[in-house]
Amino acid sequence: MQLNIDPDRFLADLKALREIGKAGTGVKRRALSEDDIRARRWLRERMEQAGLDAVMDPLGTVMGITPGVRRHLLIGSHTDTVPHGGWLDGALGVVIGLEIARAFMEAPGGEIGIAAISFTDEEGRFCPLMGSRLFCGDLSLEEALGHTDEAGLTVAEARAAAGLDDGRLLRLDPDACMAFLEAHIEQGPVLEHQAVDIGVVTEIVGIGRNRVIFRGRADHAGTTPMDMRRDAAAALHAFADGFRRFCGESSNGNWVWNLGAARIEPGAFNVVAERAEILIEYRSSGEDALDRIARTIPDLAAEAAATARVTFDMEAVGRVEPVGMDADIAGTLHVAAEEAGLSAIRMASGAGHDAMQLARHVPTGMIFIPSIAGRSHTPEEDSHEKDIVAGLRTVARAAERLLAEAG
Amino acid sequence: MQLNIDPDRFLADLKALREIGKAGTGVKRRALSEDDIRARRWLRERMEQAGLDAVMDPLGTVMGITPGVRRHLLIGSHTDTVPHGGWLDGALGVVIGLEIARAFMEAPGGEIGIAAISFTDEEGRFCPLMGSRLFCGDLSLEEALGHTDEAGLTVAEARAAAGLDDGRLLRLDPDACMAFLEAHIEQGPVLEHQAVDIGVVTEIVGIGRNRVIFRGRADHAGTTPMDMRRDAAAALHAFADGFRRFCGESSNGNWVWNLGAARIEPGAFNVVAERAEILIEYRSSGEDALDRIARTIPDLAAEAAATARVTFDMEAVGRVEPVGMDADIAGTLHVAAEEAGLSAIRMASGAGHDAMQLARHVPTGMIFIPSIAGRSHTPEEDSHEKDIVAGLRTVARAAERLLAEAG
Repeated sequence: MQLNIDPDRFLADLKALREIGKAGTGVKRRALSEDDIRARRWLRERMEQAGLDAVMDPLGTVMGITPGVRRHLLIGSHTDTVPHGGWLDGALGVVIGLEIARAFMEAPGGEIGIAAISFTDEEGRFCPLMGSRLFCGDLSLEEALGHTDEAGLTVAEARAAAGLDDGRLLRLDPDACMAFLEAHIEQGPVLEHQAVDIGVVTEIVGIGRNRVIFRGRADHAGTTPMDMRRDAAAALHAFADGFRRFCGESSNGNWVWNLGAARIEPGAFNVVAERAEILIEYRSSGEDALDRIARTIPDLAAEAAATARVTFDMEAVGRVEPVGMDADIAGTLHVAAEEAGLSAIRMASGAGHDAMQLARHVPTGMIFIPSIAGRSHTPEEDSHEKDIVAGLRTVARAAERLLAEAG
Repeated sequence: MQLNIDPDRFLADLKALREIGKAGTGVKRRALSEDDIRARRWLRERMEQAGLDAVMDPLGTVMGITPGVRRHLLIGSHTDTVPHGGWLDGALGVVIGLEIARAFMEAPGGEIGIAAISFTDEEGRFCPLMGSRLFCGDLSLEEALGHTDEAGLTVAEARAAAGLDDGRLLRLDPDACMAFLEAHIEQGPVLEHQAVDIGVVTEIVGIGRNRVIFRGRADHAGTTPMDMRRDAAAALHAFADGFRRFCGESSNGNWVWNLGAARIEPGAFNVVAERAEILIEYRSSGEDALDRIARTIPDLAAEAAATARVTFDMEAVGRVEPVGMDADIAGTLHVAAEEAGLSAIRMASGAGHDAMQLARHVPTGMIFIPSIAGRSHTPEEDSHEKDIVAGLRTVARAAERLLAEAG
């Protein structure tokens, strides 16, 4: 079993896709926008030109599959972007799927084929991972149609405006789909920093988010003695200090955390803060770790509030459980990279991907290629061409092995 | 020398003034607004009714003086308010001046009289202490006319809209003015907390203000390892912690400080902070202390920035030097309070007042009366009627003593 992938054709398609919604060095293709749907129609056409059976479903997910096969290996990602994103995030994995499905058409064999896919709205204009959730049956069409973007537009309105056809949703058939592979840019600096070609993803971390609001009293900051203040900002600063110290001492390198936003009111030089709000995020591949951090936050907040003589409220804003990738497929991807002459390391993904949705239903594997300076979700996002092609080679070699093992 | 002050007449005037610009339990009389000028015209009329020579100058400062005297004791404060302020701030001291000048008219004697005054724009709609600065010759009319409020309106435009007459500014004559006395609400909780009737002000604290801006790098908070981040929020939190600890350990109770505002950008759960700005204010009656804090801030900021691998900029936003009140007059005020059967303590003022401007030119004294719950600059600002009258009695008794000593 050999797939004659064509790196030049692959790069030409990746660059052609970049032109759709191009904005400076980046791309603007928010889910269900005009340019997002143009890109998806372009993808369907490229699939049809390759002889694949190609479908775009009522919410924009596009799949092209080897005709006449009973089972398939699914390869892909998403082509929608954040409001002003980069050209590779998602698109890389989709065009890798296209190229491998195309190469398979030119040298077909057996009852197991290749399906390439671009899920709709991975970036969550309406709902994060919307396409892969729908595809896996974990979100109903009715629910999805009611989701809104930040301007209040519903999916139903957006898809009508985009002129999408009615019809049936593309749905995963776990008996027909032997596995899912996703290639993606790392979106972080680790591979570049360690000068490694390929990251084989072992798991996608879980995420906990909390909001803590301290409530004190607005007083004149000149005339109110320090020991008579109820300073919400003092509580916030004490909490931030305690939270950073706790995470630093307890994480053993397995957690990341961020205190990326705070608001202090009324917010003046000469007024003691009445209200101080802080956003807390933490990620770990261990559910136990997420639980432990979640349990510790109210203790730290209570301690900080008591010191500053204020009260506090806490809200859990979201929680995503960690998801492990399939160990056998990770092994296959690691071997595939080495067979392609590439260096590889195992690593956790700190960001969410369609693979975390698929992994709940079919054996799933994922690789990363290096991101230049770790940048993503910005027009500066880029990767070296050799790394882009290395991603293609790794997934193609893994596909050869998986098809050979199954066939 | 005895002044037959009339507490009922005094309270009636204070309450009449409260009706001008009344808004709920508070008052809206921003400098040069329609209601501010109505209040100043009312004051001039009350002065004229009492037989005083009364003048309103081209920027709204109103003074009424015993006719025919060569020297005078100046007593007053301001009648303008913050956007939605309380009924006593400033107004108390002005109506105390009015009542004492009026009582003096009824029992005049000698060559030294009383002048009552309401300075324009103490609250700084256009410029803090604008009226007393103009009166003392520390701000020129030309400069004042060019000051703007937060909407960009100039003093020149505002005074034209208010229909103020042209003419000469009221100006301090240090040879004619033997002293200045100001009564004011405390605007803090100390007198109430200690159950004391009168605070004799020994000095008005100086104020230092700095803005520190930490500049890091916006990174994905899931995919960027902790040790590769340049987290501006981490620097801000480390700075806040260090600053609070330094002040707590070094102040000996002689400083107050406030970290009342912060802004973190871009400000999201999942983005490492690129920019974090914090506002710092500190007050002390010692210039040395202000200098020491100002010198320490860049050291603390540098240390915090290094820990978080970010850079920082610092800006000194303002500096007001501390001002001592006249020790003899403070003694006279203290004795006057005790002679009126009141308890009194010496205290520093944590807020600025017209007295700090006058003190640079003539012997100046100031007293505080208790603020209920320490509230001010809000509609909830209030004081008990017995404390309001106690303020009048203290200033009147001090005026009797000063006039007797000088006469």
